[in-house]
Amino acid sequence: MSEATPLKIDACFSPHLYSVYKDEESIVVIIDIFRATSAICTAFHNGAEKIIPVATVEEARALKDKGMLAGAERNAIKVDGFDFGNSPYDYMGGHVMGATIALTTTNGTQAIDVSKDAYKVVVGAFTNISALCNWLVKQNRNILLLCSGWKNRFNLEDSLFAGAMTAELVKRNPEYKLGDACLALDYLYQMAKENPVRFLGRASHKERLHKLNLKEDIKYCLQPDLTDAIPVLENGVLVRMKQELPGA
Amino acid sequence: MSEATPLKIDACFSPHLYSVYKDEESIVVIIDIFRATSAICTAFHNGAEKIIPVATVEEARALKDKGMLAGAERNAIKVDGFDFGNSPYDYMGGHVMGATIALTTTNGTQAIDVSKDAYKVVVGAFTNISALCNWLVKQNRNILLLCSGWKNRFNLEDSLFAGAMTAELVKRNPEYKLGDACLALDYLYQMAKENPVRFLGRASHKERLHKLNLKEDIKYCLQPDLTDAIPVLENGVLVRMKQELPGA
Repeated sequence: MSEATPLKIDACFSPHLYSVYKDEESIVVIIDIFRATSAICTAFHNGAEKIIPVATVEEARALKDKGMLAGAERNAIKVDGFDFGNSPYDYMGGHVMGATIALTTTNGTQAIDVSKDAYKVVVGAFTNISALCNWLVKQNRNILLLCSGWKNRFNLEDSLFAGAMTAELVKRNPEYKLGDACLALDYLYQMAKENPVRFLGRASHKERLHKLNLKEDIKYCLQPDLTDAIPVLENGVLVRMKQELPGA
Repeated sequence: MSEATPLKIDACFSPHLYSVYKDEESIVVIIDIFRATSAICTAFHNGAEKIIPVATVEEARALKDKGMLAGAERNAIKVDGFDFGNSPYDYMGGHVMGATIALTTTNGTQAIDVSKDAYKVVVGAFTNISALCNWLVKQNRNILLLCSGWKNRFNLEDSLFAGAMTAELVKRNPEYKLGDACLALDYLYQMAKENPVRFLGRASHKERLHKLNLKEDIKYCLQPDLTDAIPVLENGVLVRMKQELPGA
């Protein structure tokens, strides 16, 4: 990329808007904080080999019927008959070590589906934010933060995280030029960072999760830097990125 | 509407996302601060009779060829051969009194086009914010703030104004329930309101307008309450809402 063109970071608030933002050279970061991308990072941290993201429950069931472990969530609830929902706690422990897992969720896997032809697709969460940002700045590429939202609507927690990513990336490279969405999110994050739980207190999805008694999940998903795992999409399948050696 | 269902305000950041947010009972507020909706309010304040929003330059030209006054803007510049661009200053003075004007703009008229079948469509700008909010709270209806954005992307100035609308509406009726987008915008506006010009200093479109030397336009468009005119869409044509008597 020529030196005259500054690197850009932008954010897209809905998978439905991705077609407006997409280009052929940006790295796309998939964000679904409550809870798909947090759970995916947890699965790789716990040794999962592959995660096959699929758009529909039927596709996930077909893979489960072939003997694969499978997770399925709709409307924040685990779908009957599946091994996992999208709680990170479902993906902790020896049972995911070495496993290939099919996964479908209300929002996160839809975001992966629309962006699958991007230059590169990685998965972001508070739990891997530093590892991911360290890797991203080394790539010298434009970055698109793709918020999964809630059924294609803007949501507060994905936006908050995109704001955190923006702030962390700019801290590492102040030369990034921010799109309007990132400018707004950067302000928002500065306001929220002292107490993100309180900031999210009125968010629609937090309300939804609270009704389902998922307070522990929320707390977990807002913890930074629990893992160095960076999930990356390769030929339609998520794997743990190989380059991350200790200290890399 | 039953008392058990709180009235809602939500915001949609792009005409391309409108299909996700639309319903049959919300009042839609069209927002294109720099500069279409500001210019439309100015035109009605100066006595324009009707504004016919059209999506394409060709449609606007066809109406001009029939003898109508016509405005056309693309990429912030007046299209050759038209009477007006989308600067509010184009719509001040005796020449618009009683006139019917065809208008096409890069973003604002696209937002009107996608939402034309809504329960009701009105036009908002800083210049009519109090009159509009006073009217809206009396309607006892859900409200959708439709930001025109820039070529279907999120932009900072429309979002800032949607945040100002949210704050003004909640001030008048604290019972409104805010969608996640409005929660974010409300925070953003609280941060920006002391100095909106500085806040917008890094916005992409402000940069674009600055290059075109439109500083006066920007200043004008950020001034609150220059008019009581509320443009409303009736059978595809914008007219000045009739109910606004002095003190109403």
